[in-house]
Amino acid sequence: MATVTLIEYEDASSEVRAIYDDIRAVRKTDFINNFWKALANNPDQLRRTWDGIKEVMAPGALDPLTKELIYIAVSVANKCEYCIHSHTAAARAKGMSDDQYAELMSVIGMALSTNGLVTTMQVAVDDAFKADGVE
Amino acid sequence: MATVTLIEYEDASSEVRAIYDDIRAVRKTDFINNFWKALANNPDQLRRTWDGIKEVMAPGALDPLTKELIYIAVSVANKCEYCIHSHTAAARAKGMSDDQYAELMSVIGMALSTNGLVTTMQVAVDDAFKADGVE
Amino acid sequence: MATVTLIEYEDASSEVRAIYDDIRAVRKTDFINNFWKALANNPDQLRRTWDGIKEVMAPGALDPLTKELIYIAVSVANKCEYCIHSHTAAARAKGMSDDQYAELMSVIGMALSTNGLVTTMQVAVDDAFKADGVE
Amino acid sequence: MATVTLIEYEDASSEVRAIYDDIRAVRKTDFINNFWKALANNPDQLRRTWDGIKEVMAPGALDPLTKELIYIAVSVANKCEYCIHSHTAAARAKGMSDDQYAELMSVIGMALSTNGLVTTMQVAVDDAFKADGVE
Amino acid sequence: MATVTLIEYEDASSEVRAIYDDIRAVRKTDFINNFWKALANNPDQLRRTWDGIKEVMAPGALDPLTKELIYIAVSVANKCEYCIHSHTAAARAKGMSDDQYAELMSVIGMALSTNGLVTTMQVAVDDAFKADGVE
Amino acid sequence: MATVTLIEYEDASSEVRAIYDDIRAVRKTDFINNFWKALANNPDQLRRTWDGIKEVMAPGALDPLTKELIYIAVSVANKCEYCIHSHTAAARAKGMSDDQYAELMSVIGMALSTNGLVTTMQVAVDDAFKADGVE
Repeated sequence: MATVTLIEYEDASSEVRAIYDDIRAVRKTDFINNFWKALANNPDQLRRTWDGIKEVMAPGALDPLTKELIYIAVSVANKCEYCIHSHTAAARAKGMSDDQYAELMSVIGMALSTNGLVTTMQVAVDDAFKADGVE
Repeated sequence: MATVTLIEYEDASSEVRAIYDDIRAVRKTDFINNFWKALANNPDQLRRTWDGIKEVMAPGALDPLTKELIYIAVSVANKCEYCIHSHTAAARAKGMSDDQYAELMSVIGMALSTNGLVTTMQVAVDDAFKADGVE
Repeated sequence: MATVTLIEYEDASSEVRAIYDDIRAVRKTDFINNFWKALANNPDQLRRTWDGIKEVMAPGALDPLTKELIYIAVSVANKCEYCIHSHTAAARAKGMSDDQYAELMSVIGMALSTNGLVTTMQVAVDDAFKADGVE
Repeated sequence: MATVTLIEYEDASSEVRAIYDDIRAVRKTDFINNFWKALANNPDQLRRTWDGIKEVMAPGALDPLTKELIYIAVSVANKCEYCIHSHTAAARAKGMSDDQYAELMSVIGMALSTNGLVTTMQVAVDDAFKADGVE
Repeated sequence: MATVTLIEYEDASSEVRAIYDDIRAVRKTDFINNFWKALANNPDQLRRTWDGIKEVMAPGALDPLTKELIYIAVSVANKCEYCIHSHTAAARAKGMSDDQYAELMSVIGMALSTNGLVTTMQVAVDDAFKADGVE
Repeated sequence: MATVTLIEYEDASSEVRAIYDDIRAVRKTDFINNFWKALANNPDQLRRTWDGIKEVMAPGALDPLTKELIYIAVSVANKCEYCIHSHTAAARAKGMSDDQYAELMSVIGMALSTNGLVTTMQVAVDDAFKADGVE
């Protein structure tokens, strides 16, 4: 179904295998999901994307579960079916409860709805909000 | 600039004033932002939206700041300028630090990028992810 | 395939069953579509959404078929496959003819195309249009 | 602000002037809005777009106001500020009442919200809806 | 699965057959893809769309492969699965190499990511860029 | 207007200055546009983004102008005003002619329109297109 071949570990170059090994080590699982197998057609993109994901999704000022919820929110607004599936699975693996999932949905639904109302009415940004930033 | 008149408190019906009063009481500020003044052209929609926001954004299984971050993420993916401004202000009011904001941006940027890669390659959802849900 | 379990009537709580019963009564059919069975994982969201749909889609200043056409237009611009299927079915049930469907498609296609041309050229809003609203 | 020059009548080629004249005649107004002045940089695109608009927006199985409402719905879901302004003005010129506008907004807001809920939950299309079409 | 019947050549009116024949002649293949068979439910839309595609995608100031890459980029940003499949196939038929495809993906991924960063930060357009156009 | 402060060269840390210097050297101009000044609030993101842009937009299997056209196409489909302005300026700087710009617009407009038609009709992907990829 994909527009590219999925590259399995046994068919991969040593460069790609090294990245697959790192994914497995960091995630503590042997499972490599299709996204990486598709990206492996372009080893530079694979490396750049994996390095980015490792850096961005690591614990920091925001905890890893919060980051997954943000990732799901973007993926829903973006209608990326694959991404919704993979990050919902990741969020559950990181401890998302049913109640948290229910509230995530409520916030996304409310945000999409008020985004639309604001856009329909072309509401001007309040000076008070502009003052919030600089420039 | 808006496609509707903004309804100020002094020009509002008693029904609308009651909702403005509730917004002020819940938010502990006299400030009513333009979104509500625009919605007030349609008192039913104003009431339904305010009731929804109060219910959805209240503390629950997710804390209020996390909910604002999710709201910003949807609004960015949705390109709603007003919403980004108002919810970034709200997130700061609820304690979002500069480091948290920087990480929010990184996660959104990464999500948008990988959403696009997945979509370009039309990657099939892994069976392992489908098994995560039911059906 | 869904990321949540679909809740069948026989497995539902009495709170959810009451909403299913109301959906059946209002729609004059025993059929409950998957959207509601998925939402039923979160009874509050189910109730809030059903109450909203009943209020918003009822006959009013716009007739029910016009509302379905608007719903389809949003769903297409939003690429929501499920929503396109369910609201196209609803529009047909409410009497949408083949000619009306053909014109709906033409308007959507034209709107998407001119939206893109305007956006590419970043055309400034005419003063005459701004004067149309207030502010 | 636009990324192209706006072509005024007096500066236009005779080919472009003929189209401007037709726009004025069909719309029964001397006003040419910026969209056409921007498109006039590319006379072929101008002609093709104007011919399409005339054909698509003419009265048919759907009345002209309903077509404007559908146009607004797409433009909102698409966040096209210019298009929202110009088609809201057009809808008012074609008789859209305040109540109709309020209901349009409610339907758009509801559609955006349920689109998001469906997408978050990745609800599978019911067989009954698939059977609605053919294939 | 489609919400309309696909019209096969043998079931088509003479008007539709003439367009199918032209598609086959221009493309030098007997294959008619589903998009056209679906559009054939509305012969006017079929004719208008095919005429537009022939005119727009013909060699001109941009070569046909570049046009297909632009088409894919829009379709990805727009999450149109069918369009991504059909235009990726078309791009390959017109000579897109694996390296070109890899770079296309990288540019799309980078564009989506920086689009999101710009939107999150609501960066003001530089005067230097505005001066680039006129108005 | 931005939700962050723009960091000028004179106010920047030495880490940020080094990146600004590299941007100036690679682009052969003293001009630093607002995007980088906004990103500079987060030096890691600034570095990662600039490194990515340099790598992705360099000449390769696709020439730099083609890459800018793809960037514009994504930005239009994404409604990113800033990005459309900056990449239209960049494309002109790299030699985009008026005729090329006109054709870019035509392809984008056509793609948005047919994306919408396909989506409205929920056309199933042809087996021939699926066979194009692997899996």
